[in-house]
Amino acid sequence: MNAEIVNPFLVSLVNVLSTMAKTEAKPGKPTLKQGEKAQGDVTGVIGLSSAKTKGSLAITFKESAILQIASQMLGEEFGKIDDSISDVVGEITNMVMGGAKKLLSEKGYKFDMAIPSVIVGKDHTITHKTKGPVVLVSFETVAGNLFVEVCFE
Amino acid sequence: MNAEIVNPFLVSLVNVLSTMAKTEAKPGKPTLKQGEKAQGDVTGVIGLSSAKTKGSLAITFKESAILQIASQMLGEEFGKIDDSISDVVGEITNMVMGGAKKLLSEKGYKFDMAIPSVIVGKDHTITHKTKGPVVLVSFETVAGNLFVEVCFE
Repeated sequence: MNAEIVNPFLVSLVNVLSTMAKTEAKPGKPTLKQGEKAQGDVTGVIGLSSAKTKGSLAITFKESAILQIASQMLGEEFGKIDDSISDVVGEITNMVMGGAKKLLSEKGYKFDMAIPSVIVGKDHTITHKTKGPVVLVSFETVAGNLFVEVCFE
Repeated sequence: MNAEIVNPFLVSLVNVLSTMAKTEAKPGKPTLKQGEKAQGDVTGVIGLSSAKTKGSLAITFKESAILQIASQMLGEEFGKIDDSISDVVGEITNMVMGGAKKLLSEKGYKFDMAIPSVIVGKDHTITHKTKGPVVLVSFETVAGNLFVEVCFE
């Protein structure tokens, strides 16, 4: 998996958080380690597929980070992860995948999106079951970290 | 979403657990309540999509249930949820989706599968973000419960 495929997901995430939540997300160095797992308190995950390719995107947030992002998006304070936060994570996941789909489509990679799912639970981990590489990038925001995992076969 | 679409997922789960893990899984009554969430300790989730349709399948296990199922599948004892258990859940999820895809294909519903992801974390919940209905079915095994959620748009 090359940067041409991964970058649209990272660019899309930065765009979504910037335009929807006025939040700057600074990416760390992408890692390819198979053993590393994204860990956090709420995760949005969405699949993609076509006859030729398949993949998955997960965005995992620390509680502090998503509470701040949701407050920015919805204009009200949130003190804990509830159904509103879960909805926000589903929307962000959908928008990031939609943005990446558009960018990749311009490069000739066509696929369809599945339905996003949101997982809530203190310090859960997520692992993508693929024979191909999984790219993990951590992003820093003023309120805490979030993690993006992309895999593509 | 009608029984014609949901049943293949349920039939496929019963088949996979029976043939791969010699485990009988007895389904409870399917529920359509939007507020209900599958809750457990390890979840496999996989998306599906085509130009016409999209969806998601999640299988959530209580720890006791998956430890017993994995022991039956791999012929060794497991005392906690580790990477081997996570791999087993990924495989089961892939196989259940593959079986459902085959059954649905025979009825004229064609789609492609995404890459499965596995979430590990005590008592996490999973919610599918769809405007359509989400069917939740709980299954009973000798060692504990598991939950199947299917949505399809």
